[in-house]
Amino acid sequence: MPATLEFWFDFGSTYSYPAAMRVAPLAREAGVAVRFRPFLLGPIFKAQGWTTSPFNLYPAKGRHMWRDLERLCAELDLPFRRPEPFPQFALLATRAALVGLDQDWGDDFCRAVFRAEFAEGRRIDEAATITEVLTDLHIEAAPVLAAAQAEPIKARLREQTAQAERLGLFGAPSFTTADGELFWGNDRLEQALRWAKRTNGS
Amino acid sequence: MPATLEFWFDFGSTYSYPAAMRVAPLAREAGVAVRFRPFLLGPIFKAQGWTTSPFNLYPAKGRHMWRDLERLCAELDLPFRRPEPFPQFALLATRAALVGLDQDWGDDFCRAVFRAEFAEGRRIDEAATITEVLTDLHIEAAPVLAAAQAEPIKARLREQTAQAERLGLFGAPSFTTADGELFWGNDRLEQALRWAKRTNGS
Repeated sequence: MPATLEFWFDFGSTYSYPAAMRVAPLAREAGVAVRFRPFLLGPIFKAQGWTTSPFNLYPAKGRHMWRDLERLCAELDLPFRRPEPFPQFALLATRAALVGLDQDWGDDFCRAVFRAEFAEGRRIDEAATITEVLTDLHIEAAPVLAAAQAEPIKARLREQTAQAERLGLFGAPSFTTADGELFWGNDRLEQALRWAKRTNGS
Repeated sequence: MPATLEFWFDFGSTYSYPAAMRVAPLAREAGVAVRFRPFLLGPIFKAQGWTTSPFNLYPAKGRHMWRDLERLCAELDLPFRRPEPFPQFALLATRAALVGLDQDWGDDFCRAVFRAEFAEGRRIDEAATITEVLTDLHIEAAPVLAAAQAEPIKARLREQTAQAERLGLFGAPSFTTADGELFWGNDRLEQALRWAKRTNGS
């Protein structure tokens, strides 16, 4: 069994964008399997007393984040556009991602959603955008949207978010390993891969 | 004139410890001059509505930080002991650092304070520890402590903290460049040095 890293993210989370774009090639290089775990930060923020992103609640922190993300994307050669509004309500996108992760197009869909939001400035909180993203991937949208709004997937997302909270997640992106380590932030991706490789890959 | 990076830190700040230990050799390698800028995070946190460290206010965030710092220090081969209490009130240490930065022992003193607190588990909020740290550096403690508690240094620390806030600082460590860029966090040290080198060193 190859070493595995769980990659937790929220489609509204800014630093989840570079992490989602970087994780697959870095994991391949490290010989680590990655499991995409989309979840909702909203309920976790709410439990901390926050009604929106801390980047909105704390303006100095928010100003730095936008500039930092811009510099980071420039260094990584990733296109970047600041999404408006921020954060975007990603419930439908997240449920659709869960549908895709049960099939074989989940990772591609997640990257496409991040690209739509942070590279192309599209509204991922609108069903029309999700339909377009699916269509661009040559996936028939109607059955996906139907499954995304049916009870089994709704329950799965609630459970995935509850599991994130049980694992101690408080932000995104985060990475967890089989031996219970939690790494928070795009900045920790390389370290998390080293850890995963060392502990469950040997 | 060599490229310069301003290194802003608070002695109570956990991630300021690895940053303070790493900055000099990395800056030397990059050909960048570093200016140590100790300040007080307390008034800045207070302006954000926080009465203590966010790592105490948000337990999940705090749990991750301690484990992350432990992993980080292990990778860097830096000794680490969790300080008790946390955070420690660093007013006297910070004022003494300003005295030293006017002379030629400021950077060494700052590193020694961080080592006392995060490697040796000593109480840097006690005058006895500051006296010991000075003595170990072969600096006569009494005149330093007297200067640290006289009005000019007190005023300088207030001004330094006000300047940090004007520059948009909201946490520590932070790095600022002559062209107005702000980088937050130990994770951004390398990038800040690259930026400083590129912009005011050429």
